[in-house]
Amino acid sequence: MNIELVNTGSELMLGRVLNTHQQWLCRRLADLGHVVTRQVAIADEGKKIQSAAAEALSRADLVITTGGLGPTSDDITRELIAELLGKKLVANQEVLAHIEKFFAKRGRPRPAKTTVETFVPEGALVFLNATGTAPGLAMKLADRSWELGVGAGSSPSASSKWLVMLPGPPRELRPMFDDSVVPLLKREFADEIFICRTLRSTGIGESRVQEMVEADLLPLVKDGLDIGYCARPGAVDVRLAAGGTSAKKIVREGESVVQKILGENIFGFDDEEIEDVVVRLLTERKKTLALAESCTGGCIAQRVTDVPGASAVFLGGVVSYANLAKENFLCVRPETLQQHGAVSDAVAWEMALGARAKFGSDFAVAVTGIAGPGGGTPEKPVGTVFIALASADGVEVKKFLNVWERAVFKQVTATQALEMLRRRLVSA
Amino acid sequence: MNIELVNTGSELMLGRVLNTHQQWLCRRLADLGHVVTRQVAIADEGKKIQSAAAEALSRADLVITTGGLGPTSDDITRELIAELLGKKLVANQEVLAHIEKFFAKRGRPRPAKTTVETFVPEGALVFLNATGTAPGLAMKLADRSWELGVGAGSSPSASSKWLVMLPGPPRELRPMFDDSVVPLLKREFADEIFICRTLRSTGIGESRVQEMVEADLLPLVKDGLDIGYCARPGAVDVRLAAGGTSAKKIVREGESVVQKILGENIFGFDDEEIEDVVVRLLTERKKTLALAESCTGGCIAQRVTDVPGASAVFLGGVVSYANLAKENFLCVRPETLQQHGAVSDAVAWEMALGARAKFGSDFAVAVTGIAGPGGGTPEKPVGTVFIALASADGVEVKKFLNVWERAVFKQVTATQALEMLRRRLVSA
Repeated sequence: MNIELVNTGSELMLGRVLNTHQQWLCRRLADLGHVVTRQVAIADEGKKIQSAAAEALSRADLVITTGGLGPTSDDITRELIAELLGKKLVANQEVLAHIEKFFAKRGRPRPAKTTVETFVPEGALVFLNATGTAPGLAMKLADRSWELGVGAGSSPSASSKWLVMLPGPPRELRPMFDDSVVPLLKREFADEIFICRTLRSTGIGESRVQEMVEADLLPLVKDGLDIGYCARPGAVDVRLAAGGTSAKKIVREGESVVQKILGENIFGFDDEEIEDVVVRLLTERKKTLALAESCTGGCIAQRVTDVPGASAVFLGGVVSYANLAKENFLCVRPETLQQHGAVSDAVAWEMALGARAKFGSDFAVAVTGIAGPGGGTPEKPVGTVFIALASADGVEVKKFLNVWERAVFKQVTATQALEMLRRRLVSA
Repeated sequence: MNIELVNTGSELMLGRVLNTHQQWLCRRLADLGHVVTRQVAIADEGKKIQSAAAEALSRADLVITTGGLGPTSDDITRELIAELLGKKLVANQEVLAHIEKFFAKRGRPRPAKTTVETFVPEGALVFLNATGTAPGLAMKLADRSWELGVGAGSSPSASSKWLVMLPGPPRELRPMFDDSVVPLLKREFADEIFICRTLRSTGIGESRVQEMVEADLLPLVKDGLDIGYCARPGAVDVRLAAGGTSAKKIVREGESVVQKILGENIFGFDDEEIEDVVVRLLTERKKTLALAESCTGGCIAQRVTDVPGASAVFLGGVVSYANLAKENFLCVRPETLQQHGAVSDAVAWEMALGARAKFGSDFAVAVTGIAGPGGGTPEKPVGTVFIALASADGVEVKKFLNVWERAVFKQVTATQALEMLRRRLVSA
């Protein structure tokens, strides 16, 4: 099966926006056993969109376009594709009712411009937009109609193929893909066996991870195992993939090899983030959490509260950027701050104790450090971090040196703090 | 001038890695006056790389490939392109000396695998890699040699074109582009004038923004102004672009039209985020900020502390998920919570007052709401949010209805809270 993506959007070609659709859709499709063959991005211009779509249709069994379905003047994909395929756009009452409801729910009148979104190519399947207004569209193309717009091309087979058109905003595209496109794929295309499993580790660098596992995986590679390594802020993913009838067995064997070698350093699988694991473990154990963040500036709280159901276990946190906030909210003693400095194991210790006592939580995690670019000294250079974990068993403090630019520093440090808690929870 | 990018890498097609090269290169090229026409991504496989390169060369004046120049077994772009062009790979002593030096500097022996990097297509310009080992390559192609590999294609003109090959790691590609490709472009291609300005607005939906500005921009569109709209969580970007000798004048006039109409709703320009603007305004006015976050769960603090220099104006915040945290840390009265509920204007009011008093800040922003999916009532449905801003002038509370899934809800609400503060700061 041959799949191509066509991403439309002048903002992509001007470099104003990162194309997250490619990664997200390629990932989802690979997980379903379908690896994307080619991805193309072009500006919102008539000829470019039509020729890119026609070329993709001449090669692929499934073409997915993104963008250009909205209500504004640069949203022209729907019209251009209909023209390319020689299909009329017809008003769709179901879509109109859906859009009316969308605005009614928000207490706003429906803008006249959205009327354009209610017109769909005749015969198209319509995917109502659960999180926006523009519907997605899918068309089964049994003829060679996509050749009409572009003169003589290569020779596609006359067998049927699918064209799926999705809206550009990620919050609309993603649920629509999962809710509407996945069922279509399962219905229309033969299952292909492709197994991909990702083991997510933390605490070991990427090349060291590879050195540790590659020799033991070699026999499986000879059987068809494909290995990939991916370094993330504070984490390294090991990707194991295989196709064909023995894929499941090969990947499962690879997984047990990697698990045996990396052991506790593996925090999760596939799309699991460390905060998902922490919230799950806290929920299972009926324990609560409080946070005291200095240099991470709310990053840990932000990640924990992104997990649905976090409110059952997360009581709250203090972002204590100023020293006075450490004293007033977390009961850090002024003499500790004066004697050891705000970035010290003693202050991390008191922050964690203070947060646990004042929130009345089972666990409290505290972080203090120097994010940079300024603020370093020879003794405590930029990147120095102390992380403390308070529980009924007392307080544990660890020191780290995270030499990254500001935003990455915060994410790496947050991962280390969550990992300290995860280790405690799994060993408890 | 017609430019195409060809990104190679199996990890791209499996969706394990985000393609940041597209945005970075498109942005850099647009800033130089050259808008990229098309971008393609394909896996590290022989036929796919050769056909994508040949197709791009048949259309473009400049083709830039990324990836596949390294020393490992999946780095095959150099060999495949040489084969496509019928060029021999010849050993290059300058590259060898550079790689020897690279490893000598790090006190490590040169791995034998890197020898492959010292072979370059005959006649190619070599860009030594300042931050790695694999050199970049550039070739002026005066004939139609790129057609040989692919049979009959379309008919390119016989005029000369450039093929530039860059290594995949961003830390190698980026300095190499700036140091070696930019001078090549300036030498080989005529300067083109292209001006692009983005005005970032908040508080008005995408289609309404267009309705408001399009009629007044129409005369400029006739003169060559290109307009784009992009919806972000809580914000809408209006992008104005033009080429040619009058581009600067046209874009400047468009900017003043949009500014006049959207007025205060414009919070920033180009890459500015609303938190950048807020930190800048606070710094200029020598004012401090504290936060009290419930439903945003640290999202506002996380965004504010991503801005370098935030520590000069941001004292800290409380993430008060539990009601008891609202009482203990922010002095919200139990009877207020009982009488009005945690999601109410009265509680938002007291949270803001409490945060301002306890942090001793000039401004305090407080947020309480229902992120969902659970917790809604007919009276206060999921998405209900109260945002309060406390200052020396008293407290102001606004109510919003943000019907989005959890992570987007947090970002949209954080943007509204920062916008309330920004408006107050600009009007002060």
